[in-house]
Formats: sequence, structure tokens, C-alpha cells
Amino acid sequence: MSYSRNQFDDSICALATPQGVGAIGVIRVSGKSAISIVNSCFKGKNLEQAEGHTLHFGRFMDEETVLDEVLVSVFKAPKSYTGENTIELSGHGSPYILQRILETLIKKGCRMALPGEFTLRAFLNKKLDLAQAEAVADLIASASDASHSTAMNQMRGGFSSQISELREKLMNFASLIELELDFSEEDVEFADRSSLNQLVHYIIELLGGLIDSFKYGNAIRNGIPTVIAGKPNAGKSTLLNALLNDDRAIVSEIAGTTRDVIEESFVMGGIQFRLTDTAGIRKGSSDVIENIGIEKTFERIQQASIVLYVFDASTTSQVQLQEELAAFDGINAVLVPVANKLDLILGAAPEWFNEMNCVSISSKTRTGLKGLEERLAAIVHSDKVKNDVIITNLRHFEALSAAKESLESVLAASHSGLSGELLAFDIRKAIFHLGEITGDITTDDLLANIFSKFCIGK
Amino acid sequence: MSYSRNQFDDSICALATPQGVGAIGVIRVSGKSAISIVNSCFKGKNLEQAEGHTLHFGRFMDEETVLDEVLVSVFKAPKSYTGENTIELSGHGSPYILQRILETLIKKGCRMALPGEFTLRAFLNKKLDLAQAEAVADLIASASDASHSTAMNQMRGGFSSQISELREKLMNFASLIELELDFSEEDVEFADRSSLNQLVHYIIELLGGLIDSFKYGNAIRNGIPTVIAGKPNAGKSTLLNALLNDDRAIVSEIAGTTRDVIEESFVMGGIQFRLTDTAGIRKGSSDVIENIGIEKTFERIQQASIVLYVFDASTTSQVQLQEELAAFDGINAVLVPVANKLDLILGAAPEWFNEMNCVSISSKTRTGLKGLEERLAAIVHSDKVKNDVIITNLRHFEALSAAKESLESVLAASHSGLSGELLAFDIRKAIFHLGEITGDITTDDLLANIFSKFCIGK
Repeated sequence: MSYSRNQFDDSICALATPQGVGAIGVIRVSGKSAISIVNSCFKGKNLEQAEGHTLHFGRFMDEETVLDEVLVSVFKAPKSYTGENTIELSGHGSPYILQRILETLIKKGCRMALPGEFTLRAFLNKKLDLAQAEAVADLIASASDASHSTAMNQMRGGFSSQISELREKLMNFASLIELELDFSEEDVEFADRSSLNQLVHYIIELLGGLIDSFKYGNAIRNGIPTVIAGKPNAGKSTLLNALLNDDRAIVSEIAGTTRDVIEESFVMGGIQFRLTDTAGIRKGSSDVIENIGIEKTFERIQQASIVLYVFDASTTSQVQLQEELAAFDGINAVLVPVANKLDLILGAAPEWFNEMNCVSISSKTRTGLKGLEERLAAIVHSDKVKNDVIITNLRHFEALSAAKESLESVLAASHSGLSGELLAFDIRKAIFHLGEITGDITTDDLLANIFSKFCIGK
Repeated sequence: MSYSRNQFDDSICALATPQGVGAIGVIRVSGKSAISIVNSCFKGKNLEQAEGHTLHFGRFMDEETVLDEVLVSVFKAPKSYTGENTIELSGHGSPYILQRILETLIKKGCRMALPGEFTLRAFLNKKLDLAQAEAVADLIASASDASHSTAMNQMRGGFSSQISELREKLMNFASLIELELDFSEEDVEFADRSSLNQLVHYIIELLGGLIDSFKYGNAIRNGIPTVIAGKPNAGKSTLLNALLNDDRAIVSEIAGTTRDVIEESFVMGGIQFRLTDTAGIRKGSSDVIENIGIEKTFERIQQASIVLYVFDASTTSQVQLQEELAAFDGINAVLVPVANKLDLILGAAPEWFNEMNCVSISSKTRTGLKGLEERLAAIVHSDKVKNDVIITNLRHFEALSAAKESLESVLAASHSGLSGELLAFDIRKAIFHLGEITGDITTDDLLANIFSKFCIGK
């Protein structure tokens, strides 16, 4: 389908609440004729004469059959989510009845909404920009404090307004430079080169901050990939269970990409971790299946952000641990040695645990888990940049990187005294990429790609 | 908990929409302080000053944290579902956010609602009677035209008002007879015995009609138990598949009570059937497992309302079929001989198919299914009594039966000239049982039993 504005003369409807039986189910209808269509199936107050933002109780009729007693919320354009006339029908949460209501609405002239089409219309009607629209989907998918608050911040426009402001400043300069080109024979300079340089420097730094925040943002959005490794019987699985049971919010159990790796998601200190328990690592096992497991363990470690290396505190010497940790040299992840089975040590833990920056725990007696939690949180937050705005979206990351690259060309061109034409070209490129984020620049493909990932009804 | 009215000084909250991720999630809050509690977490218009039946957009706050941008519906007592101050909060359909909002509401003084507690409060505030409240749950569970329309009718009070009216008439008579007892020495007769007899006759007949409707009502509420039987290779499973594929609405697949029987629910002509495919019946099989299957088939047949006996039209003679059908003598179900494989017969079907009231079909070519559908519908509707009101609830059936019994005692007492005291006693018993239906007579146990079956949030 095309996403040009004048396509949207029709009215759309969809179930907006999750599938299944519940007390209430909500159907959303939006479009020019939304109110008149619903009114033609409604016995109660005349909805076409109703004020916006009012609620009306009545019967929803399929011809002479009462389908349900419903509560109708009336929103009048442009004061609605989509910016169009909108009705929200709240009925009994029976899938059968909700289906019948949708069928009746379609009979009366609505069509079923595509995924994300309500939010798409909101975007096209300038109720929110593209980055805000994307944040709506992130907000719905958010499963931890951190992912919730970045999505909320983005939805409320913090990020967008920053980008728009920069973009506007660049556009002023681009216009001035382009104006110079018109007067090229007179050798005037409308755009002050040193102000331009200053602005571009400033923006590059700002974009750099945003780009850097993506590592943190992506991690909190999708969960921090964390691997539990260690020798057999070091207590890896007990630690996994201790961490999972300890937490109020076990988000989900995700079947791993391979059949032998199970991933558990859990939230700790408001941050979501994707925790992988791995096969125990021991050298020279003759068991083929075990060796495959060990190979997969190393694959996982390569992709992880954090590796918890669990060892038996009661039997492992410092030299031994140093040798074992050496196997992880060159990995990208932060390596955390975890001294487990603290309960088996009589008296104080050895000094070298501190020297080697170990976290001491006992999964069995559930001691030291708080310390582990703090260590994990500290690692994650060390990635957090000063910037209040955090990038969570790969598309934004790519657009920001492209904009930054163009601006670096501007700087280079400016230093080497290149023509205003080339300067203007690179500035326009940066403007284009920034515009991609907020949706000032869009293509049908881009919109289709973004909104098709939404749920229906949003 | 006790269900006495003054227990409900507190405010309750619950998720009213199904669990899971969706575009919208709705949280319901009801009670004296519902509006002030929500207002204390709401940044936007002052909800305490808002009119009833209005909608307000704003932010839901947990202290300084924005949890969501929400749409708040305000309902002021007594103009709400529960009859109390009520708020419906419509937020983004993220289970995480909805959970956080509920936690905040609880922190501010709400408590989590028990299953059905909103409807219970509506009942205690006389917004609906008990039969109507029960119909709400039936309405949500309805999965076919027929079950939907009986539940809707009951929820809208058709049944209740009929019962209340009868009950009132009986109460008048009871009062008059009790008045006579006060004046017993004067031998007056305030209550005209022949009018009383007439009324009791009338009510007994009416109750009889309602009681008779239960067979139909129960069937359409729970689905008509239908068994497909027949010899091996008669085409039973093909018929099952043909019926299931043919239908727009396959409601569900219910695992049977036994591991070997799978039940499929499907809707045909607006009526739900619970269809059981059975093991083929053949005498003297030596296969133990097959014999167990056949035994289960006969168990199912005993419980069925309809048995479709499928036979191979191309190989079965009339005498053979008569013999096979004789095995079903004495069952309660309606037996429908289904001549399958019509496609294998060259020319016209034999005359005796009609004589024996067979339905002729070919599951393979999907012919004759319409005729089978009509036959099934006709069987179901033959149970439908003239009464507009249909009883679907076992509790109502039992109360009506008890009321009818008491009234029959009244008639007997009246005929044998028993004392007014006994007469009044039996009338009061009938009044009691009718009152149980509408909830004029309730006990905590009864209420707990009814409302605990509701979903939370209703």
C-alpha cells in the first residue's frame, strides 16, 4: 500500500486489546466516517451530535440483533490519537462478540486496520514524529524499568526535539551557502565559515554522544547478553536458579538459537539481562556431544557483553583461576570471576579473591547475590553516557552515524577550502539523515517497514 | 470474605483486559476513593472536578516517574457499572507498564479486586440482579449465536423481570393469607382461594416451560454433545474434517475426558456442537486396544444428544443398516443415519434412504453437508420451547424446580382444604426459591460461589 496522505479517506477498525477472554475488550475505529459508521450501529445517544472526549453507554446493533451493551468514547478530529475522528468501543471481553462487532463495522464500511495503521495515521497527521511513533512500539514491548524509561522519554519527544533543533540550524546554514552560490560572481560570503565550523563541531560531538549511547540503549532495550561459564560442577546452574528465583520479575524463557542453549530473561536493578547457562568447560573430553556443547559455549561467549566465570571457591587456587581466566583473553565481554560455594570455606575468604576482583557468593545459601547484582549494574551503567537521551533503535543509530559522517566531510571540505557547492551538498546529506529519524524524510518502504512491526490495533 | 454492603468502603483495582501485549490495556478502579486515588497519580486535568462520563488525557505518575500516557474515563456514582465512583484507565498494552500502574494504585490505597468483584458491587448496589450478573459471565464466555443471544437476553433482564413479577404476585397472596391467620378466630378469607389456585396453576405452567427450556438452554450454552459413530472405514473422520473445515468458526479443540477421545467444538447455524469422533464399531475384534476404544465409543454415545451413524452408502443394504441401528435401541440421543460416499453410487440413491430418514452426503466431494446441517439444526430447535426466555443455568433450573414443587404442594394443600398456615408456608417456600434466582435471597456462600467464577476485572 502507499502511505501518501490522501489514501486515508477510509475508516479503519481493529481490536486494540489483547486476544482472549477478559472483562473488557476495546475496538478502535478511526477515519472521517468513524463516528457516523459507529452511530449507524448504536442505539443510545446520537454520537454524531456528541461532544469530543465524552462517553456514552448504549447497545451495539447488527441490524435488529443486540450484539452487546457497549461504552463508546468519542474523539473528534483533530483531538484524537490519530488526529482523525475516532471511536473506542468498550464491550464485554468475549472474542465471539468482539468478532461480530468488527464484522458489523466492516459491513457498514470500515476496513480492518493494518498493523500500526492507527499510529501511522497519527504520524501522517503530525500528531507525533517517526521517532516518537517507534517509541510507542518500544514502550509496549518494554519489560524493565530502564527500557520503559528510555522508550517513554523518546515517545514524549525528548530525542526528536533535539534532532529537529540541530536539523533546523543546519538548514539555515545550507540556505545561506546556497544563496552564496546564486551570487557566486560577486564573491560574497553570507554564511560565516567560523560559525559554521563551530556548529558542525558541536553537532558532531552531540551526535557522537548519541551514537555512543546506542551500545547501552540497545542492551537495555533487548537485554544484556550475559553468559554463565565455568568448569563442570562449579555451580553454574545453581547460580542461574538463584538469580532467577531471587527476582520478582522473570520476564520470559527464550528458546535459544541452538537447541542446547536455553536463555532466561530476568530483570535486576531495573535492567533486563538475557542469561545463558552453558555447558561446563573441560579440556579434552572424549564425549562428542559434550564437546559440541563446549563449542556452543564459546560461541555464546563471543556474543556476550558480560561473562560470569563461576569457580568453586573451596577448591580453586589463585594460580588455577589465573590459568582458567587466561582462556578468555581477547573476548569482548566484561569478565567477572564469581567465587561460588563460599559456604564451604571455613573462616574468612582468601585475600586474593579481592585482588582478582572476584565476586564472592554462595548460590546454595543465597549469600552475596546482592553484591553480584551491584557489580552487574555497575558494568551496565559504565556504558551509559552522560547524554540524557539514549538511542535504542538500530535505524536511528545508522542515520546518526551517516549524518555524523557527512558532517565530518563538511569539516574536511571547509578546512581544505573546497567550494560552497560541495559544502552545501554534504550539509544537505546530514540534514537528510537527521530527517530520516524524525520522519521529515520518509519513503513508503521505510514506513511499511516500521509500522508492519506494530501490533494490529495500535 | 463477607459480602455485606458496608464491607465496600475500600476501592478496588484490576486489569480488565486480557493478559498479554496489545495496543491498549484497561485498568478499572472502583470505590468511594477511586477518583481521588487516580487523581493523586494523574498529571492533567483535576479529575475530582471532572464531570461524569468524560475522558481525559494525561500522564500516570509513580511519584516523579512518568509510567504512561493514559486516557482516563471518569464515571461518578451512581452512574457507573458498579454504581460507585469508577475510573477506567486506558494505557499502552505493555504488561510491564500495566503492572507498574496497578502497583502504584495499591500503594495509594487501592486493593486488588477479587474475581467478579466489580459485578458483585454492581449487584449489591442494585445495578443488576443476580441472574443478570450471572448472564454477564455467560455473555463473556459465549461462543455462538445462540449462546450469545440467550445470555444477552438474560443480562438485559428479560428473565429476571418475569421471575420478579411472579414472585410479587405470590407475595401478595402470602400476605393476605398471613393476614387471615391474624384474624383466624373471625374466619374471614382475604385471599380468594379460586384466584390463588388460578395464579398457582398459571405459575406452575410458566415455571414448567422455563424448566423444559433448560435442556435446550444447557445444550446451547455448553454445546450439543454429538457423536459420530459407524463401522471402520465408513468415513467418520472424513465427515468430521468436512464439518470442521466447512465452518467459519471452529471454536476450540477440547481434550476429551479420556485420552483416546478428541472433542472438536464447532458452530453450525449459530449453534455450537461438541463433536466426538469415535473408534469404528465392529463386533468380535481380537485387538484389545481397539476393544477399549469401542467401549469408550459406547460410553460417549450414552452421554450424547445426537448420534450421527455413518455408513457406506455404496455397500450397505437396508437390512444390514436396520441390524446395525438396532444396536442403538434404548439410547437417549437422537439417532441420525448418514449415508456417506454418495459419490460412489451411480445414478439415483436407493429409495430406502428416504424411508429410513437418512441424510445422504459425500464427505469427500462435500455434497449434502447443507442437508446435514439443516437436520442437526432441526433436532436442536425441536427442544426449543415456545417461551422466549431460555434457562441456561443449572442453579436457576434447580431453583425453578424447587419453586414448582412448592407450588404443587400449595395446589394439593388447597384441594385437600389444609390450613392457611401450611398454605402460606409453601407459598413462602416458592417465593424463597424464586428470590434465589434474582438475588433477593442470597447467602455469602452463594455469592462467593457465583462471583468466584468470574474473571478478575469484571
